[in-house]
Order: sequence, then C-alpha cells, then structure tokens
Amino acid sequence: MPITGLTRVLAVIGDPIDGARAPEALSAVMADLDLDVVVIPVGIGSDGLAGFVKAARSWRNLDGILVTMPHKAAMCELVDHLSAQARLTGAVNLVRRAPDGELWGDQVDGEGFANSLTARGFALEGMHVVMLGAGGVARSIAFSLAAEGIASLTIVNRSRERALALVDDLDASFPALRSSVGDESAVATADLLVNATSVGSVVQPGKPLNDLTLIHPGMIVADVVAKPIETALLLAAADRGATTHGGDLMQKSQFASIVEVSQGRPGDRE
Amino acid sequence: MPITGLTRVLAVIGDPIDGARAPEALSAVMADLDLDVVVIPVGIGSDGLAGFVKAARSWRNLDGILVTMPHKAAMCELVDHLSAQARLTGAVNLVRRAPDGELWGDQVDGEGFANSLTARGFALEGMHVVMLGAGGVARSIAFSLAAEGIASLTIVNRSRERALALVDDLDASFPALRSSVGDESAVATADLLVNATSVGSVVQPGKPLNDLTLIHPGMIVADVVAKPIETALLLAAADRGATTHGGDLMQKSQFASIVEVSQGRPGDRE
Repeated sequence: MPITGLTRVLAVIGDPIDGARAPEALSAVMADLDLDVVVIPVGIGSDGLAGFVKAARSWRNLDGILVTMPHKAAMCELVDHLSAQARLTGAVNLVRRAPDGELWGDQVDGEGFANSLTARGFALEGMHVVMLGAGGVARSIAFSLAAEGIASLTIVNRSRERALALVDDLDASFPALRSSVGDESAVATADLLVNATSVGSVVQPGKPLNDLTLIHPGMIVADVVAKPIETALLLAAADRGATTHGGDLMQKSQFASIVEVSQGRPGDRE
Repeated sequence: MPITGLTRVLAVIGDPIDGARAPEALSAVMADLDLDVVVIPVGIGSDGLAGFVKAARSWRNLDGILVTMPHKAAMCELVDHLSAQARLTGAVNLVRRAPDGELWGDQVDGEGFANSLTARGFALEGMHVVMLGAGGVARSIAFSLAAEGIASLTIVNRSRERALALVDDLDASFPALRSSVGDESAVATADLLVNATSVGSVVQPGKPLNDLTLIHPGMIVADVVAKPIETALLLAAADRGATTHGGDLMQKSQFASIVEVSQGRPGDRE
C-alpha cells in the first residue's frame, strides 16, 4: 500500500533503534490487514523522549507509539493516563493517541503472553508457574498470569530484592495467588516454566535454567526470547518431552493489541 | 524495501496533510534510487510546529522535514541556520537535519523551477520574464531566475504592495536585473511567462492570465500548478504555439534537492 497524505503513523521509539524488529514485523501485519498505517523507527535518546512525546500530542495522524528500551519506565511519567497493567508494572510499552491528543499508556507484554497461551488452548487457571526473571517484562507477565487465575507463582531471580518487591505487589492486587521467591528446584513440580529474562537471545546467549533435568514431560516451557525462536532452553525442553512455547507467539499476540491502536479501538483504558 | 530499524525518515509536515502528494511521490523516488528512506505525512497545526521541530533535533534517524502549507514562514524562526534562498524568500520548504541535531532551513522551490528549465536546454540568461504572483513560491522563483541572469522580470500581482516589496528585495540583491511591477500586457514581448499562483489548480480552477491572446509562438509558458498538469493556461499556450512547461517538472527537479537530504549531502548552507 503506498504511503499518502492519508496514511497513519505508528512510531517505534528506542535507543538504539537500529536493531528493532517491530517496524518490519508490524508493517507486514498492517499490510496483511489492509490497514493504511506506516510503522517507523524513531531513534531518540532519554534526553529527547519528553520532547517527542509532547510533539506526539499535536501530531494528528499519529496513532500511537510502541515503546522499546530504555524508555518504558520513563514513559509512565509522560502520558496522561495509565492502564492498570502499566501502573502495576511501572512500565509503558504502548501509547495510544486519542483524537483529542491525550496519550494513554498501556503495557501489553503480559497480556500478549497470556493470550498466546490461551489461544493455543491451554487453561491457565489453577496452574503452578515458575518464572525466571523479575524485570519489566516479567512483572507484566506475572500480573497477566495472576489475572488469569493461576494457583501459584514462584519467582526465580538473581536479585532477590527485586523478586520480593514483585511478590509484595502481586500480594496487594491478587491476595488469592500463592506467590513466592524461590529457586529453580520448583520447576520439578511446575505446570508452566516461563523464561522472562533475555538469557538465550542472540545478544545474551546461554541457558536461564542451570539444571535442565528439572524439565519434565507434560509441562509447558515458554520463552519470551524471540530471536532466536529456538532458544537453548526450548531445545532442551523439547528433548525432554515438554511442550514448548516460543517468544514469537507472544510477539504475534502483542501485535493484536498494537493493531487495535490503528483501528481506533480504545484498548485497556481507565 | 521493507522498513526496518535502520530505515531513515523524511517527514512531510503540513496542515491539513491529507491531500499532500509528496509522501507518495517521494517514496517512489526513494525506492527508485534504492534508498532506505520512508517518507511520512505529519499532520500538525501551527500550535504544534515548534514542538515537532524541537523533537526533530533529538530524532537521530530523521533526515529532514519537507515543509508545506501553512508552516513555511514560521519555520524560518525555528531552524538554526537559513540558506540565502530561504532568507531572501522568508520561507523554508526543506529542513535538513545534521548529525549533530542542528537544523538547516532551505527553500528549493525556485531552484527546482530554474533547474527544470535549464534541464530542458533553455538558457535563462538574458530572458525577459513575466511572472504572475508575488507569494512565497513566486519570491523563490524570482530569486532563482535572477541568479540565473535573466535580463528583466515583470511582476503581475493582485496586491501591488507585495509585488513592490519583491521588486525592492530583488533590487537589493540583483542590481543588474531590470525588475518592475507591471500588468499582463508585458506578456506580449516576454520570452518566458511563469504562473506562480495557484490559479488553475483543482482547488482554484481558472486562468491566471485574463487575455490569453497575449501568448505568442516561440515563448515559454510555465506553470507551478502540478495538479492538473495540463492547466487551462498551458492548454491555451499549446494552442497558441508556445512551449509549455508543467508544474510536474518543477516538482521532479525539487525532488533532486530533497533526495540529497537522505544521501547526506549538505546542500546549500551558509
């Protein structure tokens, strides 16, 4: 579809932006859906973020901003409204621009992850989950899994302090959830293992789980890493008879939320 | 060429932007040249212009801004440097962003027009020219034609005051040029007639010259209107044996200057 004066814009902001895959991947989705939306990379550092967000309020054919590293936390302070998910995770990865110029910050990482599992027919309710990591993506996933009614969540993280903070926040919003900080031995009895760290990606190769023999047949092993899709963790999980769930599926599911922006749906606002 | 994190951006700013042809036309030029540049429409009103320009300083993969109505005059105050052509015309239609974030304002309307004529082999030096209009585009064309060494320029304009101001400015920079305010009877002895008004365009149909019989064989009749390419003026000129020169040629020639932005050439700086 040619870009004309009528084309709407979705900005992908980050620093650096060179390696961002979202512009190409999302452009393909927009084209598939026959949406007249161009997805552009915007390379802006932290010192320029507030200025760009201010300009976005006046930019009438801008549908929204997909926020990548390192701007997710800072974006919380710059938008006019925060969704529950963004407030809980302290991070915004999607900004919707309303026709009146107001900006609505949302966090669709966790929602995308949870939706990608339910789309495959997995019932999350009652599951015992082990999550590796307690960073921004991990927080978002934890709150979304909690909202889906998982029974327990064991958080395994290098920084115990950060993991404890997440448990506290989960307890405040989801008192019925049994959440705790633990170690990877919990994988032995888990229904779902989630790697929410970047270990296993091309930029940080390796295994986020030290003892791969804890993986057992019948469990689901999910990875947020999308490049490569077949991480060392998922290859080991497949070898051991577990069901694997790649980061590409989470990404595709997130796209649904992002595409909504360009279709003029309000999304999760409060 | 797919849009990736490495793609550079050229913004076309205006209000309204819906009808802008530059995004599509320039995208095609960029594709022809295998340049990884996306040309996007940016619909921003006067109250948001300064904010966008400020953000542009931090936007590292932004090559430049093509400025359309109504922002050309206001842009003069917002950039860090003005080319001679921009300063003389009091308008900026192209902003180049240097790698250090500094913004260089230029005016390539007139240059594009003059180049489009010389590209067809017409020698402008010594020509007697009648120009209809004394607005922004007209000023730019007048200075470029003067720089090419035309012998005389007669300006025909509804507002005599504005035409006189242009003559004063031309006299200051090009004392050898015989410039004057006149009426359309001057067309009878002109080598070149330029319509630099929007009369004849789809939004303002009509003829910018009342007495079409003043057009004579051997002269050149040029129009800045590009939509339609065959304006009432050019159709009449062709009927009367004159050589016609459409607004599309000026536009194509301007593209060369704009493409330079994305090729990292400094352009006309001072």
